[in-house]
Amino acid sequence: MSASTNPSPSATEVASEDARQQIKLLTCKEDAYSGVIVEIDEPMDSTSFVLRLKASILQWKQQGKKGVWIKLPIELVNLAEPLVKERFWYHHAEPKYIMFVYWIPEGPNTIPANASHQIGVGAFVVNDKKEVLVVQEKSGLLRRKGAWKFPTGVVNQGEDICAAVVREVKEETGVASEFVEVLAFRQNHKAFFGKSDLFFLCMLRPVSSNIVIDETEIEAAQWMPFEEYSAQSSVQNSKLLKYMSNVCRAKIDGHYAGFAHVPTNSLSDQRKRYLYLNAGGLERSNSL
Amino acid sequence: MSASTNPSPSATEVASEDARQQIKLLTCKEDAYSGVIVEIDEPMDSTSFVLRLKASILQWKQQGKKGVWIKLPIELVNLAEPLVKERFWYHHAEPKYIMFVYWIPEGPNTIPANASHQIGVGAFVVNDKKEVLVVQEKSGLLRRKGAWKFPTGVVNQGEDICAAVVREVKEETGVASEFVEVLAFRQNHKAFFGKSDLFFLCMLRPVSSNIVIDETEIEAAQWMPFEEYSAQSSVQNSKLLKYMSNVCRAKIDGHYAGFAHVPTNSLSDQRKRYLYLNAGGLERSNSL
Repeated sequence: MSASTNPSPSATEVASEDARQQIKLLTCKEDAYSGVIVEIDEPMDSTSFVLRLKASILQWKQQGKKGVWIKLPIELVNLAEPLVKERFWYHHAEPKYIMFVYWIPEGPNTIPANASHQIGVGAFVVNDKKEVLVVQEKSGLLRRKGAWKFPTGVVNQGEDICAAVVREVKEETGVASEFVEVLAFRQNHKAFFGKSDLFFLCMLRPVSSNIVIDETEIEAAQWMPFEEYSAQSSVQNSKLLKYMSNVCRAKIDGHYAGFAHVPTNSLSDQRKRYLYLNAGGLERSNSL
Repeated sequence: MSASTNPSPSATEVASEDARQQIKLLTCKEDAYSGVIVEIDEPMDSTSFVLRLKASILQWKQQGKKGVWIKLPIELVNLAEPLVKERFWYHHAEPKYIMFVYWIPEGPNTIPANASHQIGVGAFVVNDKKEVLVVQEKSGLLRRKGAWKFPTGVVNQGEDICAAVVREVKEETGVASEFVEVLAFRQNHKAFFGKSDLFFLCMLRPVSSNIVIDETEIEAAQWMPFEEYSAQSSVQNSKLLKYMSNVCRAKIDGHYAGFAHVPTNSLSDQRKRYLYLNAGGLERSNSL
């Protein structure tokens, strides 16, 4: 109260300012949104950690900082309880750390949401004889006695969709292939701990034909005439699989354009990023 | 050792079996992959928690269980340290809980990965006069003095892409619109705490034209002739934005087919799931 009516600091404030100078503040980096990021990398007892944390927050507040991010490695989990007591909450976690977050200003926070989707891929690998590469899996929800399906898998963190689908086909069946197009994709919710998933149906061109299955995941694999795959009751009785099968047939027949991948990178950033688009449609427009 | 050579239990084993019967095992549900899921929902001191946990794991091991999932609410963070000491690790976290995981069998685990992607949307809202809805944002990395951009935003957890982009346009500019197609998408890595993102460029048809901007996020918004948007140096100097702008022009010119959304749901599951595909290409094939 006195601070707002009287510009000179009170005795208590001077004393606490004095004490604070002796407390080693937490080392932090600044982000582009007036936030600070702290990576805790040395063991601390919780009492001295809380003192350092409180003094640091006071300083960040004076500096007009907003979000405070604290990355806590799993071996320092003893500091998780003190952080929660200081009103930090969880932003996300990975196997070896928890990212805590705190919002300094009054009012609603603009902390960005955590990752929300897992990305799956399915491979339509078709050769010149209109035979498609199909597998039977050893486990999983989709396991059905006798039903043959396209190879599928999950995109690894940091992996391109076009690379992930080629990798999965190679791992499961031993067949080498080249990415051609994304033919369609499907979004699904509450697939996995409340998270959503996006599943990309991709067309691949095989560059080898010999099958060597991954015994841990796959029961059997074979090249099968596309119409035989499509006629299976497991396909015909699923609205989704039937749609996807019709898309594949339209592609074989030459009537369907999916999204090819083109590399793009901005001037400021040399990392390669793929843009997926209807390359034929764009070409027709550009050639006018 | 004795257990494997002698079928009758040792004295120690009988004693520990006896003790275990008096320890209340943790309540769990089973999952479809020989795993168990525990939701801790009552306060416990860490000593009795560890006793119950050890006894439970012993039982699950005997039952041939593999993965153990423990969902720990933030108010019971005092049990995080004991879990880590018992060799649990983090699978993921959301603001109010951490999901711990543990693998009982010898050998590598088949625990599925955490969500890896955030989903962004960009809106190409174009009217009959070939005017496009553009905004200037108040903050963010893409803020550039004088540059006009498409409205963009992040897909909420559980939200469809086709709904998210309509919502973002309405929130930022007040303009009501209908989803038409995904025109292209781009995958980017290490965008956000090591996570990846997928950005979907969507075409929308406006059903209102009056602009009322969201003052907290948006500096200004207007309807702008498409060629004026496209001619901006911010677009022409970015390989990515130039590509996307060319895709939009091809769409205006009628030479480009993106992916429309069709609802699908399987027999076993009545939740609506959207499949995005080249509807015109599929139609041409079906009409043969």
